[in-house]
Amino acid sequence: MQIIKSCSALNSINFQKPFAFVPTMGNLHEGHLSLVKFAKENYSEVITSIFVNPLQFGKNEDFASYPKTLDKDIQLLEDLDCNYLFLPEPNFAENLEVIKPNFSDVLCGLSRPTHFDGVLTIIDKFLRLIKPNACLFGLKDYQQQLIIKDYVNKKKLRTEIISLPIVRENSGLAMSSRNNYLSKDDREHCGIIYSCIQNAAESLKTSPVKIVIEKATDFLENAGFEIDYLEVIDANNLSLITKKTNKILIAVAVIYKKVRLIDNIIVSL
Amino acid sequence: MQIIKSCSALNSINFQKPFAFVPTMGNLHEGHLSLVKFAKENYSEVITSIFVNPLQFGKNEDFASYPKTLDKDIQLLEDLDCNYLFLPEPNFAENLEVIKPNFSDVLCGLSRPTHFDGVLTIIDKFLRLIKPNACLFGLKDYQQQLIIKDYVNKKKLRTEIISLPIVRENSGLAMSSRNNYLSKDDREHCGIIYSCIQNAAESLKTSPVKIVIEKATDFLENAGFEIDYLEVIDANNLSLITKKTNKILIAVAVIYKKVRLIDNIIVSL
Repeated sequence: MQIIKSCSALNSINFQKPFAFVPTMGNLHEGHLSLVKFAKENYSEVITSIFVNPLQFGKNEDFASYPKTLDKDIQLLEDLDCNYLFLPEPNFAENLEVIKPNFSDVLCGLSRPTHFDGVLTIIDKFLRLIKPNACLFGLKDYQQQLIIKDYVNKKKLRTEIISLPIVRENSGLAMSSRNNYLSKDDREHCGIIYSCIQNAAESLKTSPVKIVIEKATDFLENAGFEIDYLEVIDANNLSLITKKTNKILIAVAVIYKKVRLIDNIIVSL
Repeated sequence: MQIIKSCSALNSINFQKPFAFVPTMGNLHEGHLSLVKFAKENYSEVITSIFVNPLQFGKNEDFASYPKTLDKDIQLLEDLDCNYLFLPEPNFAENLEVIKPNFSDVLCGLSRPTHFDGVLTIIDKFLRLIKPNACLFGLKDYQQQLIIKDYVNKKKLRTEIISLPIVRENSGLAMSSRNNYLSKDDREHCGIIYSCIQNAAESLKTSPVKIVIEKATDFLENAGFEIDYLEVIDANNLSLITKKTNKILIAVAVIYKKVRLIDNIIVSL
């Protein structure tokens, strides 16, 4: 695997096409690795990036303490035969014009108001610089991939945005670097976030949305979770469900022992 | 979902781009549905085809008796909000120039010598007619997707070929329409095909290929399976493993109660 540390070094690469790009903030887990595996299976070459993007963290968030495990990450990527690893310099995110996305005023956008501006600004920079045929994201960050798809579509960028299923720990907890802030027992307990939204999905068949949300909220609060949001909305545009809605997103963000955890499930109607 | 029964009706459709194509022979199971779900998640529109392609069946194979469940298939596709279903007329496969693929003289190509000619001939016709941005296949048919990727690459067709993971029954048995030929108990028993290749993958870390193949062969024969092939080869080109091999394919085809079942696993080195 070739490690690239500058934009000029990146520009001199003649990628075998089609090639795929997997942007990450490092601290790689099975969720990230599922993206790299998919990319290796379906594209001629794969470039992964590791960059803890300061633009997408709020003032009181965990930018400084975000887990960094570069040596282990490199080994994991080598094991999957990833072709390139891009490690941008710390100033990579400086002096960029901030991009304001659609769909960013609900869910995670409400509690993290500048988060998606930061995500989209950096992804735009990556896509214009690397020009991959495909760029891969996980569906855990459902709102993120929706925002990026919308942007790429509107701007007619040549990269296909592909979203892959959530990878979970044995308990059901969605894989996330932030799971590392929790003990093994806590992570086991947090598996019920997933059970809860699975049950909510099932209940939607027979109960009104309002009741489903109330029940799920009670359940999570009784289990010790502080709820940031728990929404049942149109998966296509994150707005209220209408008669036209053909798939529903149940999305949840909770805080447990100061750690913010998100998860979601799609229900096809 | 709009159902299309002729090539001329197909030609008049103005697909929203990017759109994905899922070719099937019907009798849809969770494996097929995982392709349609992926397509719905990642593309603006999805067209599925159901066509039992006579060209890919040998003389003594199950073309005539291949399971047909069209009404149920339509319902399943409607449930997933698939946009179009293409049901070619029976003469769709007539008068085509047969295409001879690479990689077709090993594995399934040995026991089904004209199978991949038939597959590639029909896929070529589909891709030139429909011109999808992406065409999706399952990795159960590993050799098939490799052959199609190679062909599309060489012919510089504009469709991206995407392969998605094998979907399994609870027993571990890879989903296949041919599983319907077996009883529930038989399908449970056939789960050990997967355990066997998983064990073989593990053994490869410590044992030579020859020993791994012998052990797996013995295991399956003792469990009542007739072995068509069991190969441990280079996943990139289906040839013998060399020092350059970075991923290994363990591929197996067995006959159980007259039903031919295939499965495979990839081992990254």
